[in-house]
Amino acid sequence: MKLWGGRMSKETDELLQRLNASLPFDIRLYREDIRGSQAWARALAQAGVLSQPEAQALVEGLAQVLQEFEAGDFQPAPGDEDIHTAVERRLTELIGPVAGKLHTGRSRNDQVATDFRLWVMRACDDLQGDVQDLAQALLERAEEHLEAPMPGYTHLQRAQPITWGHWMLSHFWPLLRDRGRLRQARTAAGVLPLGSGALAGTSYPIDRQALARELGFDSVSSNSIDAVSDRDFALQFLFACALLGVHLSRLAEQMILFSSAEFGFVELDDAYSTGSSLMPQKKNPDPLELARGKVGRLVGHLSGLLTTLKGLPSAYDKDLQEDKEPLFDAYDTLRALLPVLAGLLRTLQVHPGRMAAALDPAMLATDLADYLVGKGIPFRQAHELVGRAVRLAEARGAGIHELELPALREISAAFDEDVARVFDVEAALARRGAEGGTAPEAVRRQLQAARRALAG
Amino acid sequence: MKLWGGRMSKETDELLQRLNASLPFDIRLYREDIRGSQAWARALAQAGVLSQPEAQALVEGLAQVLQEFEAGDFQPAPGDEDIHTAVERRLTELIGPVAGKLHTGRSRNDQVATDFRLWVMRACDDLQGDVQDLAQALLERAEEHLEAPMPGYTHLQRAQPITWGHWMLSHFWPLLRDRGRLRQARTAAGVLPLGSGALAGTSYPIDRQALARELGFDSVSSNSIDAVSDRDFALQFLFACALLGVHLSRLAEQMILFSSAEFGFVELDDAYSTGSSLMPQKKNPDPLELARGKVGRLVGHLSGLLTTLKGLPSAYDKDLQEDKEPLFDAYDTLRALLPVLAGLLRTLQVHPGRMAAALDPAMLATDLADYLVGKGIPFRQAHELVGRAVRLAEARGAGIHELELPALREISAAFDEDVARVFDVEAALARRGAEGGTAPEAVRRQLQAARRALAG
Amino acid sequence: MKLWGGRMSKETDELLQRLNASLPFDIRLYREDIRGSQAWARALAQAGVLSQPEAQALVEGLAQVLQEFEAGDFQPAPGDEDIHTAVERRLTELIGPVAGKLHTGRSRNDQVATDFRLWVMRACDDLQGDVQDLAQALLERAEEHLEAPMPGYTHLQRAQPITWGHWMLSHFWPLLRDRGRLRQARTAAGVLPLGSGALAGTSYPIDRQALARELGFDSVSSNSIDAVSDRDFALQFLFACALLGVHLSRLAEQMILFSSAEFGFVELDDAYSTGSSLMPQKKNPDPLELARGKVGRLVGHLSGLLTTLKGLPSAYDKDLQEDKEPLFDAYDTLRALLPVLAGLLRTLQVHPGRMAAALDPAMLATDLADYLVGKGIPFRQAHELVGRAVRLAEARGAGIHELELPALREISAAFDEDVARVFDVEAALARRGAEGGTAPEAVRRQLQAARRALAG
Amino acid sequence: MKLWGGRMSKETDELLQRLNASLPFDIRLYREDIRGSQAWARALAQAGVLSQPEAQALVEGLAQVLQEFEAGDFQPAPGDEDIHTAVERRLTELIGPVAGKLHTGRSRNDQVATDFRLWVMRACDDLQGDVQDLAQALLERAEEHLEAPMPGYTHLQRAQPITWGHWMLSHFWPLLRDRGRLRQARTAAGVLPLGSGALAGTSYPIDRQALARELGFDSVSSNSIDAVSDRDFALQFLFACALLGVHLSRLAEQMILFSSAEFGFVELDDAYSTGSSLMPQKKNPDPLELARGKVGRLVGHLSGLLTTLKGLPSAYDKDLQEDKEPLFDAYDTLRALLPVLAGLLRTLQVHPGRMAAALDPAMLATDLADYLVGKGIPFRQAHELVGRAVRLAEARGAGIHELELPALREISAAFDEDVARVFDVEAALARRGAEGGTAPEAVRRQLQAARRALAG
Repeated sequence: MKLWGGRMSKETDELLQRLNASLPFDIRLYREDIRGSQAWARALAQAGVLSQPEAQALVEGLAQVLQEFEAGDFQPAPGDEDIHTAVERRLTELIGPVAGKLHTGRSRNDQVATDFRLWVMRACDDLQGDVQDLAQALLERAEEHLEAPMPGYTHLQRAQPITWGHWMLSHFWPLLRDRGRLRQARTAAGVLPLGSGALAGTSYPIDRQALARELGFDSVSSNSIDAVSDRDFALQFLFACALLGVHLSRLAEQMILFSSAEFGFVELDDAYSTGSSLMPQKKNPDPLELARGKVGRLVGHLSGLLTTLKGLPSAYDKDLQEDKEPLFDAYDTLRALLPVLAGLLRTLQVHPGRMAAALDPAMLATDLADYLVGKGIPFRQAHELVGRAVRLAEARGAGIHELELPALREISAAFDEDVARVFDVEAALARRGAEGGTAPEAVRRQLQAARRALAG
Repeated sequence: MKLWGGRMSKETDELLQRLNASLPFDIRLYREDIRGSQAWARALAQAGVLSQPEAQALVEGLAQVLQEFEAGDFQPAPGDEDIHTAVERRLTELIGPVAGKLHTGRSRNDQVATDFRLWVMRACDDLQGDVQDLAQALLERAEEHLEAPMPGYTHLQRAQPITWGHWMLSHFWPLLRDRGRLRQARTAAGVLPLGSGALAGTSYPIDRQALARELGFDSVSSNSIDAVSDRDFALQFLFACALLGVHLSRLAEQMILFSSAEFGFVELDDAYSTGSSLMPQKKNPDPLELARGKVGRLVGHLSGLLTTLKGLPSAYDKDLQEDKEPLFDAYDTLRALLPVLAGLLRTLQVHPGRMAAALDPAMLATDLADYLVGKGIPFRQAHELVGRAVRLAEARGAGIHELELPALREISAAFDEDVARVFDVEAALARRGAEGGTAPEAVRRQLQAARRALAG
Repeated sequence: MKLWGGRMSKETDELLQRLNASLPFDIRLYREDIRGSQAWARALAQAGVLSQPEAQALVEGLAQVLQEFEAGDFQPAPGDEDIHTAVERRLTELIGPVAGKLHTGRSRNDQVATDFRLWVMRACDDLQGDVQDLAQALLERAEEHLEAPMPGYTHLQRAQPITWGHWMLSHFWPLLRDRGRLRQARTAAGVLPLGSGALAGTSYPIDRQALARELGFDSVSSNSIDAVSDRDFALQFLFACALLGVHLSRLAEQMILFSSAEFGFVELDDAYSTGSSLMPQKKNPDPLELARGKVGRLVGHLSGLLTTLKGLPSAYDKDLQEDKEPLFDAYDTLRALLPVLAGLLRTLQVHPGRMAAALDPAMLATDLADYLVGKGIPFRQAHELVGRAVRLAEARGAGIHELELPALREISAAFDEDVARVFDVEAALARRGAEGGTAPEAVRRQLQAARRALAG
Repeated sequence: MKLWGGRMSKETDELLQRLNASLPFDIRLYREDIRGSQAWARALAQAGVLSQPEAQALVEGLAQVLQEFEAGDFQPAPGDEDIHTAVERRLTELIGPVAGKLHTGRSRNDQVATDFRLWVMRACDDLQGDVQDLAQALLERAEEHLEAPMPGYTHLQRAQPITWGHWMLSHFWPLLRDRGRLRQARTAAGVLPLGSGALAGTSYPIDRQALARELGFDSVSSNSIDAVSDRDFALQFLFACALLGVHLSRLAEQMILFSSAEFGFVELDDAYSTGSSLMPQKKNPDPLELARGKVGRLVGHLSGLLTTLKGLPSAYDKDLQEDKEPLFDAYDTLRALLPVLAGLLRTLQVHPGRMAAALDPAMLATDLADYLVGKGIPFRQAHELVGRAVRLAEARGAGIHELELPALREISAAFDEDVARVFDVEAALARRGAEGGTAPEAVRRQLQAARRALAG
């Protein structure tokens, strides 16, 4: 069944039919499509376009179609070009000609936009749940070794000591921002287009505000042309997914590094590792590599849909049919990935001993400069002096903490006996107590703030 | 002057110096850098790290540097690798060794993040103004011919009559959503990173909340590692720009079509047209084509920065230096484009006569189907019957409105004398009176809503 | 069955198994995988690693597995993580433990690279056929109205007269370049990685050159680490597809314009048009809009895979598993699209009358300037003078050809009686006779060159 | 000076002038523009359109303009919209009205395409040189420690022993493929568009083949419409740059890892390292991080220009003006980056001792399985048995080579006294002697092949 055809003198070319058909992917909108149609039938009745018994027949027939989908019994027919056609065709089989009244005053243009927005709203909710759980896993594992010292890196070079908890939490906050972006995407989706017709608005006195309320939309679209052509919400969803993907890729990269033999800070549980078909000893961090690699498709989907939308001229163009697959794939990708990462984190073995062993005294060079600042030397000069001390130590093949006082005093007379106290990691950590710093006490406060934020 | 070097035994390679240098582009952050440094000097004094006279000297010296920049007198020196170095170098020249105290407890990592966020906040405000003005221009021109009928297109085929005002407003609402996204980007930027040090937090008791208030940030960052590595705000800004660019490209595309000889609905003012070096008769819509074409760079910047950020391992990596140029270019692009588009719209000649002449009676085929629905025929069947009528008319080389009643009645007995009334464009427009529809009355309400929204 | 596991103490997490599994998409490599394995079995025998009967058993068993795939009888088992595992598992069921000898000296890293390259080589050949046929269709339709005059557009403004054949051929040459890029992609793919092991090379004395010949590769890889990590060929394929997609989008855009009511130069056959569920009169160019819209996904796949590959550290990383789906989708997209476009072109109605009617005398303004050049006036000045004439005509609401001689002579005394001859479209076309120009005679030569090139 | 204007009744809006102006970036085409114009002047003379003295005057005047550019004396004037206008304006100042004859039969559409193609041809040559030198540096450093054993990684886990030379060369071959793509881009650019006019061809009898020869093009364009609208060459250039960028990012990533304290395989020379403004001990691999990060902009430029070109309707649209900046930036980026990387490699300290120390006996597990294969056990079973041995060793906290024979024989009776011989790295390396393998002898052959290829 096609929803058009009276006007044409020929059958549609078969290859075109296949190219054109969206049922293979938009079939997953069946719930949204049926729910939207039921609401439309009721709205038509309320507007006096259908009688109550007609509306009743439509609503019940649609419920039966839904049941068939849910039970896995729905059989697509050869001519079903999309989910809308498939549902109306089946409805006609079930309840006869009155099914032909359902599409009164409606177009597939406003119908599909409605279905898709309902789907995006639900998808945002689903992803929120997964993001929430991964964030929770980070909190849990942060707490466990909250104050365990480890090297902090910049440029992948050892920089300054931090704590494990502080580092874990540095991956928590980006997820919280992702949650915010998913909310923004949901809000963008929550505007009802139904009642916009093909582009000019419906010619029946539909109460669109009531429709919006029934379907769970926050508001109704203000302009029928814009309503059938706006895909901002889809792009916001893809952007939120792409940025979430970037964050996962960064977490993954660091975990891959930390689980290498050379770092050895963490070890993946066997249940979250995979092996090699050739090398019997291998234990590979596949899930982390997939987390890192899959950001490619998320970024690709975003730039792909932006490209598709570029320069589209009018209200509805068939190009817009390209809007769904990237979102479906982004959703599936993240829903498959997020729970695995949460599981991986929860079962991860952490090796505080290896981390502590990697703390190099040179990482306290900044504290040594601060020591000189405390003696009244301007920081810029102190930095230069300590740089020389580092070079001297390196030349001697010694640690900077092993330079004896006379050697230091040759560099600056400000060095004194008390310099030894600088090389105490605990004290160095404790000094960074300002909000957001790595001092254990500050990290404890941060953890509490994170917990509150996650609950909020 | 370099802010480091004591540790190295050799001069930096000259080509590397050039590759590494960011001054050529980050020089435009001078205002933000100086403002941030002044606030930092005061915060150091408040924390007891600097004396009041020292802080005073720094603040005043920085004011002098700012003045040099504003006056165009600032002279970069060969070794200035970035704006931070340039400012501190000049400050040292002006006020001597005390300048070396400014960088106490701070890193370029938190400093540049602060500068850049301040810049993004301002950039959002600037773009808001331009978007606002373009939206205003759309309102003005919508109002002028608010109820003038014109063809509405889907698939670039004539679909149903709409009004000029309705069409203009269909480009207004996307801009309003862009305004919302710019606000979200600004909010994302409004989190203070200063006081995060290189990654571990500052080792001095800085009151970061006070710093945030002084610099106009909404809040302070919660984790120092995240603070120096988070570029979500930059991506949100680029995303807002890219989507705004998509909207401009769609408006532009349609204006280009409408100003072609074939459509002829509008004509660009000579001040907004350009000519050809070869063809003397040409009058080209260059600004519209640039609006359409420049979305490419906006999309490219977004996917470029996402790619750069993918898989970055640790707190701060030099890769992050790549974050600024795409934003600067996106900002410059839109600031150059938006006012030109506003001017183009305000001077545009609109030809209601040409639009009315393009109204083809076949565009009322839906209304004809609705007529049959009114006679009790289910819409799906009515659609089929009218499709046949369209085909019949086409075969006869006539308009559908020219089919005589007997011919129509052969298609369906439900056609009656009153069918002639269907072919009244005014009436067809008026029927689409539901919220967001093209009925003149609905469009007037829409205009008022748009005006309120713009003011809000 | 997993190809590893002895080393692990636990079952792989079920969600990870699902995330990790590539069988759902790499199953389409079954032909390549089996063919590659048969060649590998023979190579192992030749190297003395397997006995001839063992190799025979493997080759025949694999042939049986292939048969099951071809017949649609192959049943994946729950543990099959990828096509390699699935094939080896089934082979084991069919021929017993000797199947365990197949993977000697081989890794999935070199195996999958081999399969994928074989697939890309075939994909290039398939797409070549489709591109060839579309190019052929353009030639056919170019020839039909080869010399029919029509307006040429720049900036979508009428510029100069051209012929239909010239315009059609302007879409032919890009396809010919696409053919070249597909060839380059095929050449890039034609380098055998098999025999590279996991990354270090195989530890058996395999004759890789013989392997390459048997499998149809042009050469063998030079470095085993590069061999398992190189995906340049995949990107070249995606790039060729994306650029082909851009060309199709440009052809489509122009056809959409030309089939609008306002242009009316062409009309799509009913078999290549679609209708509206709401508006009975609509005849929409859906296939063209899909051709335009689908370039989004092609561009997205390219930038996605580039992103995935960015910064990958070592020989083989699991991220590389992300390489296949974008190519499969690009291939499917183009193979569905190209034949439809060829069919659409072959059935297209062309309206030379409508095109001729759109020839506006102002399009000969350049020829008028050339006329003045013929009278000795420098072109730049001639251009200026004709520009004034155009403005004068416009002010009078007349065509430029309708200005009488006295009026022209007021602009320049160089105008003379013979100026009327300028406004002859045929003559104007004929003047553009240099290679590649729009003169009918040049277009005929171009057609012949195109025909030769297509055959080449 | 504008090259048009007679037709307009008003001055161009000032903001539009600024938006429209391409001189700020296309000024770098001055050499190509002048060279192209000189050739055009000669061609006009040859076609009898100009007298020899006129052509002479033009050619010499243009030479003078060129000289001014080269000397840095050229002064842009306010109205110069692009390089073509600027040159013609200055030429007019220098030689008077005869300058107005230069643009006869030419359009900026074919002129700019010619300039841009000439630039791309030169840019390809320049980049070839840099790529060649970087490849050379890789060869040099490969040779130096050609046979030094080091761990090969897959999934960033230690996999199998390889040699330093083999690893270095794994980064050589991608560059060689990049060289091939730059050649393809150059070939794509080498097609002369000049003589195509605005879109319809020139109306003068120009010998385009002679023009092509004079300007160094390989061939002439076949279709004038395609000639002014084809930007395939620009995309091929950007694609070649993006993929080269991906290769550099991969090399960089691995060098960053290897120069971390944890790996410690290499150390950057001080001249190629940078420091921290805060942390005096830091020595950061900035150039490598920039190499990794800058691929973002290269990928962004490619997807940006693809987006710009998508769906462009006709011969020349102003959107095409967006084609240059991404190429200029890609070129500048790579020309700044490549020599720094070559210098970095040439001064890199390599630590074979650290690499040898990282060779873990478990990396020979595959060889242990091969040992069992040698005893007649099918590889799949051998893999499983060795997996168990690895697990056993791990449980005991021992190396796999430390398991005594009885323990091994409990796993498989096939283990025998000779098993100890497996754990010899030299022998393991030597076994991988097939083409492309890591055996020292194979690597020596590879080095020679690489040297020949580089010279070729």
